[in-house]
Amino acid sequence: MDDRRLHAHLIGQQGSRRALNTPVLVIDADALARNIATMAAFAQEHGVRLRPHAKTHKSADVARLQIAAGAAGVCCAKIGEAEMLAEAGGVGSILITSPVVSPPAIARLAALNEALADLAVVADNPANVAALAEAMNGKPLTVFVDVDPGIRRTGVASPTDAVALAQAIRAAPSLRFGGVQFYCGSQQHIEAFAERRDAIAERTAYLQTVLDALKEAGSPAPIVTGGGTGTHRIDAALGVFTELQVGSYVFMDRQYNDCDLTGDGAAPYETALMVDARVISANAKALVTIDAGFKALATDGGPPAIISGAPEGAAFAFMGDEHGAIVAKDSGLTLGDIVTLASPHCDPTVNLYDYFHVVRGDTLIDIWPVTARGASR
Amino acid sequence: MDDRRLHAHLIGQQGSRRALNTPVLVIDADALARNIATMAAFAQEHGVRLRPHAKTHKSADVARLQIAAGAAGVCCAKIGEAEMLAEAGGVGSILITSPVVSPPAIARLAALNEALADLAVVADNPANVAALAEAMNGKPLTVFVDVDPGIRRTGVASPTDAVALAQAIRAAPSLRFGGVQFYCGSQQHIEAFAERRDAIAERTAYLQTVLDALKEAGSPAPIVTGGGTGTHRIDAALGVFTELQVGSYVFMDRQYNDCDLTGDGAAPYETALMVDARVISANAKALVTIDAGFKALATDGGPPAIISGAPEGAAFAFMGDEHGAIVAKDSGLTLGDIVTLASPHCDPTVNLYDYFHVVRGDTLIDIWPVTARGASR
Repeated sequence: MDDRRLHAHLIGQQGSRRALNTPVLVIDADALARNIATMAAFAQEHGVRLRPHAKTHKSADVARLQIAAGAAGVCCAKIGEAEMLAEAGGVGSILITSPVVSPPAIARLAALNEALADLAVVADNPANVAALAEAMNGKPLTVFVDVDPGIRRTGVASPTDAVALAQAIRAAPSLRFGGVQFYCGSQQHIEAFAERRDAIAERTAYLQTVLDALKEAGSPAPIVTGGGTGTHRIDAALGVFTELQVGSYVFMDRQYNDCDLTGDGAAPYETALMVDARVISANAKALVTIDAGFKALATDGGPPAIISGAPEGAAFAFMGDEHGAIVAKDSGLTLGDIVTLASPHCDPTVNLYDYFHVVRGDTLIDIWPVTARGASR
Repeated sequence: MDDRRLHAHLIGQQGSRRALNTPVLVIDADALARNIATMAAFAQEHGVRLRPHAKTHKSADVARLQIAAGAAGVCCAKIGEAEMLAEAGGVGSILITSPVVSPPAIARLAALNEALADLAVVADNPANVAALAEAMNGKPLTVFVDVDPGIRRTGVASPTDAVALAQAIRAAPSLRFGGVQFYCGSQQHIEAFAERRDAIAERTAYLQTVLDALKEAGSPAPIVTGGGTGTHRIDAALGVFTELQVGSYVFMDRQYNDCDLTGDGAAPYETALMVDARVISANAKALVTIDAGFKALATDGGPPAIISGAPEGAAFAFMGDEHGAIVAKDSGLTLGDIVTLASPHCDPTVNLYDYFHVVRGDTLIDIWPVTARGASR
């Protein structure tokens, strides 16, 4: 049953969070607002543009809040995600951070470029740039050169290839050279700050050689976009990026909470995303079973942390598609009790739900669609 | 963009599978039909009732095919899944295989019991049985006693508790005692047949003591339901179950393909579910990047197997939320090429998609909604 049909009558009712059917994806409205404001202030203070990654939240509502706080627009991972956010309205500037290569997807890109005020995409291959150039037939499409920071996932492999691709983009009348994208995915989750800073400084020195080569070749990068929640403070201090693609800071998850983001142990961002689950069986010693398993929590990031509802020292263990266990010697938990979990990894957890349930304390205050849920193509 | 808007024009066009936007969840129509027919014939031959588990496919279309082939109805994991399949029509008999405990969910159960021809649910707790009895106020609800086979996930913990619960159900005028559910989840994936058979024989001997205790107490179980794809041939040979809850046989996945289901190495069921993905970057040595990651493939079952599109010996590796790598010394793969993967674990992979794309060979022949996608509550 649609969540709005199921839960809309609970909006504004004191304590109504406890009456939600579980498992349910919950946003703490105040924590979300503080995370958005803190990052916006940080970017403004450091003179860097903010383009938060929408792959984390897939939500037009969250994107609008980020833009209202000063973001230049958002990033999307795929053309489908961009289409959904554009259709929802309120998001006029989107950068698609992964190459769009198939003919049907490029045709959709051309259509979206006409519909949206400001659309950009990355490319890492001359054949792809040629196909993009061929397909655009109205407003020029902005194309960024994606530079591989050593992950070997996407991006050109050398400064020479970056220059060649930038020149191919500049030579096409239907394209516009946007600049360079550089995303150090492997470095985001290094837990110790100093180790992460050294790794990023080394990679940023490489990025600088790419930027120097472009400049020398007469194709300087107008925008240098990249970075993430794990490295944004280091990126800003190094001063090479002109635009930050931070995503997870809006919600935070167990993986990022394990990282020292500032170097002094301060935690500028709060856990704003949770999953509430309910005890549905309590017959075994030292564990109870809750109604959240592989279909309610992403499994790539290990088990979720327990935020509340279970005693200190209790742990979550996956029990298959539909169930999890709260393991504790004497949890005192009984049938119907609610346990609140921190998502292990936000992005793929959000992708499992059709709606966010927005709360203030224990009261449901709104229900927001996960606008681009499932839009991975 | 909605898959039907995106792809409906390709239905019936020769070779149109290659034109689908990727990643895309694909059903081989003929393999699906053979799997359904083979299991139906097996059940009929062994005089056991079939009630396939719909948590695997969440699809009204697949459920209707199973029922047309002789299934008595389907199982659902959660009340939400049952609501969606009931609303879609063509499914008149549903057993919910996990306890429904919260007051709002029990209210939905009461409503569904009025709407559906034949609804049943399991219970493992006297307080839950009392709550169910209190909430039903029209047609009696059928309730099965869920017996824990030693997983400690759900189920009563002893024959004595089973008898007490059966008697509580029988004592409630608004409830009807349906029988016993016994699901040996831990044994389903034991790869060697003989080892799996011995484990199930031992567990079934325990089940028999539960059934004997019920009979002695004057509450014999009308139906004994359980079993799965991994054990159904053993379950049928042991002859204790009267109804089989097999799920994964319709699609098969990498995990079940690793199991010897028959004891003689025969593979009675075929891989009918696939994910087609596309190469979107090819700049690195010994690997190319495809557009399927954590949001396109369940991660709890390890990496998917490669069915076609890459040379012998190539392997898949996850590369984050949106990407995967095909690792091979010289794959010959280039931008836009398609690689077909076998889902590592069907159920949570299906739950990531809104639609199945049904193919015969390389031609798209239909698009079916994943009726109960996301309905985990």
